[in-house]
Amino acid sequence: MNRKLVFTEEEYRRRVSLVKERMDHRGIEVLLVMDPSHMSYLTGFDGWSFYVHQGLVIDLRDPCPVWFGRQQDSNAARLTTWLPDDHIFGYKDEYVQSRYIHTMDFVAELIRGKGSTLAVEMDGYWFNAKMFLKLQEHLGPMKIIDAANLVGWVKTVKSDTEIEYIRQAARITETAMQLTIDTIGPGVWEKDAAAAVSAQQIRGTDSYGGDSPAIFPIMPSAERTSSAHLTYDSDRKYQAGDVVVLELGSARYHYHAPLSRTLFIGEPPKDLQHVAEVVVNGLQKTLAGIGPGVAAEEVEELWRSCLKGTGVEKPSRVGYSFGLSFVPDWGERTVSLRPGDKTVLKPGMTIHFMPGIWLDTYGFECSEPLLVTDTGCEKLIEFPQQLFVK
Amino acid sequence: MNRKLVFTEEEYRRRVSLVKERMDHRGIEVLLVMDPSHMSYLTGFDGWSFYVHQGLVIDLRDPCPVWFGRQQDSNAARLTTWLPDDHIFGYKDEYVQSRYIHTMDFVAELIRGKGSTLAVEMDGYWFNAKMFLKLQEHLGPMKIIDAANLVGWVKTVKSDTEIEYIRQAARITETAMQLTIDTIGPGVWEKDAAAAVSAQQIRGTDSYGGDSPAIFPIMPSAERTSSAHLTYDSDRKYQAGDVVVLELGSARYHYHAPLSRTLFIGEPPKDLQHVAEVVVNGLQKTLAGIGPGVAAEEVEELWRSCLKGTGVEKPSRVGYSFGLSFVPDWGERTVSLRPGDKTVLKPGMTIHFMPGIWLDTYGFECSEPLLVTDTGCEKLIEFPQQLFVK
Repeated sequence: MNRKLVFTEEEYRRRVSLVKERMDHRGIEVLLVMDPSHMSYLTGFDGWSFYVHQGLVIDLRDPCPVWFGRQQDSNAARLTTWLPDDHIFGYKDEYVQSRYIHTMDFVAELIRGKGSTLAVEMDGYWFNAKMFLKLQEHLGPMKIIDAANLVGWVKTVKSDTEIEYIRQAARITETAMQLTIDTIGPGVWEKDAAAAVSAQQIRGTDSYGGDSPAIFPIMPSAERTSSAHLTYDSDRKYQAGDVVVLELGSARYHYHAPLSRTLFIGEPPKDLQHVAEVVVNGLQKTLAGIGPGVAAEEVEELWRSCLKGTGVEKPSRVGYSFGLSFVPDWGERTVSLRPGDKTVLKPGMTIHFMPGIWLDTYGFECSEPLLVTDTGCEKLIEFPQQLFVK
Repeated sequence: MNRKLVFTEEEYRRRVSLVKERMDHRGIEVLLVMDPSHMSYLTGFDGWSFYVHQGLVIDLRDPCPVWFGRQQDSNAARLTTWLPDDHIFGYKDEYVQSRYIHTMDFVAELIRGKGSTLAVEMDGYWFNAKMFLKLQEHLGPMKIIDAANLVGWVKTVKSDTEIEYIRQAARITETAMQLTIDTIGPGVWEKDAAAAVSAQQIRGTDSYGGDSPAIFPIMPSAERTSSAHLTYDSDRKYQAGDVVVLELGSARYHYHAPLSRTLFIGEPPKDLQHVAEVVVNGLQKTLAGIGPGVAAEEVEELWRSCLKGTGVEKPSRVGYSFGLSFVPDWGERTVSLRPGDKTVLKPGMTIHFMPGIWLDTYGFECSEPLLVTDTGCEKLIEFPQQLFVK
């Protein structure tokens, strides 16, 4: 079969080594990885097969991870990963969503005898309560502990090639954002603007395309902007007086570049103009203070100091780490820019600085995807920081 | 706030009653629902906020479900559900992906004192192991049992309005499928065909738009068709000799209508033609045997009898129930057309009959979304059943 790997086998092996180092230091002999972005990070695995149970078993003593998944998806492992055939285990279809047998009956046999401590992604999207109870039942005296976000933390610092893919995604995001702002206007169907965005996110540039983003375009209008994660109203046309919030992220090989902007159709009200000024001003000042050696919580503190006396409040985190992801989120669930997060920023981290404001009847967003560099931070996208007016 | 409900409050209340009936018969006093499609089914809740913990608490003694989620998403509950304000509980942002406090610390307080038996969606996508352990820790003597797919089973039989939305989605799917087949040809970028599909899925018809489908377009070419859930190769152009499998599902108010077809660029090889003939022939014979009173496993048996002596094998289930869904799947995880599934089909069920064949080096798909009627079944989409040739 013609494998297509988007990183060298050496890079995948280096990532596995970094995961094993953390496993070893925590006394974890076997790690079960079920997050599709973690699977992809360590092996290249791709495909929309995560709606059935699939994962990797990482054994400290085995140089290669083991892939397991549905039989009909095992050729995807042959086509998209660096794993040898004898590390690919497809389970028969009877396991899929069965009321009588469970995929973990199968997975337990891949784990049994490999050690005394198994770690699982307890708080991840893809490891549910039933899986845990089934493994506990099968693996008897083996200790099952929470890996927490072990792979996610390794993933947080990007290699040069990863950064290159994020830059490629950034080129797509900026064209999608511009197209959306150009498209929106009074009398235009919201669905038609959303269709234009989605097409552009996939069409990409003249030389490469985009992948399905981990978050579908968030683009609410009017009152719906008062909530953070609503999208277009498929039955509605934009009209004068609408505020429209756009949070768009495109993906290249599933590496994202998210960006938010806000536009107003007509003459924006004073209070929105004030919020926009405060946010853009705070954004610029905070960006100047982001760099290696700065703690995540210090970034938030700096941002908060910019709000003092402005009347604008922001009671939620102002950013997070992003990168390689599948649905439902492009965030990495590691670094959060908020009080108490002690993570010290390092070169190669990519942070979505996202000071979204959601008020009772409207919202405002102006965000930046950033790369932490050796000396400070770099905006991955150059796009005017302002309230757009149509 | 201007609520937009896509069903009457009466219909939502009826659904809650049906869920409570099942709860009562199983001795469940409180049910925790975290699947976004179940949340939407019972309350209308919409939005891409499911990447943080959110759900419903259904208490046998309370006429209304309680919604909980992130504070910044609580206006989405006010804008998209029938719930009164005093049943909407936003938690503060510190809970989001925290290493110190957990959303279930908050949720446990909403459940405490409501009874002695709590049921949770143990094997769902959205209830993870950590949530289970946290609830166990907080709720002490309360018995926590597996609800299994309690809401999913209620959801399986559709109302007239639900069927109307599925029909609307079907109109979008057929235009998207036709556009894709028209677009694909030698020298065309795969990404450009995918962009056309995605745009059409959202643009919809002249009178209404589509929503984000729960599964991104599955459209592999060549060798990648040997696996069931790969999509386009964003760096590749179609070429003569390609087989292309298309599994597309559009959504109206998150109600889906999925459809699969296969095309070949050039003169199709004899073996693919044979597989296509066998599948289309079996499909037509099986459809004639689907109707109310037939068990799911009998449908599969009928299909299997059509394969006898053809040399074609199909070792996986041949269909499943579909409807209202969010990512990662439009299937309902209830009815499966396979040996052992005793579900007796009823009018109002919607089944994706999906006899996909995945061989060593290529695949073939030709599927039909069906509505079980009072007398048999109805194809929700009329689209030629054949191997398309370009």
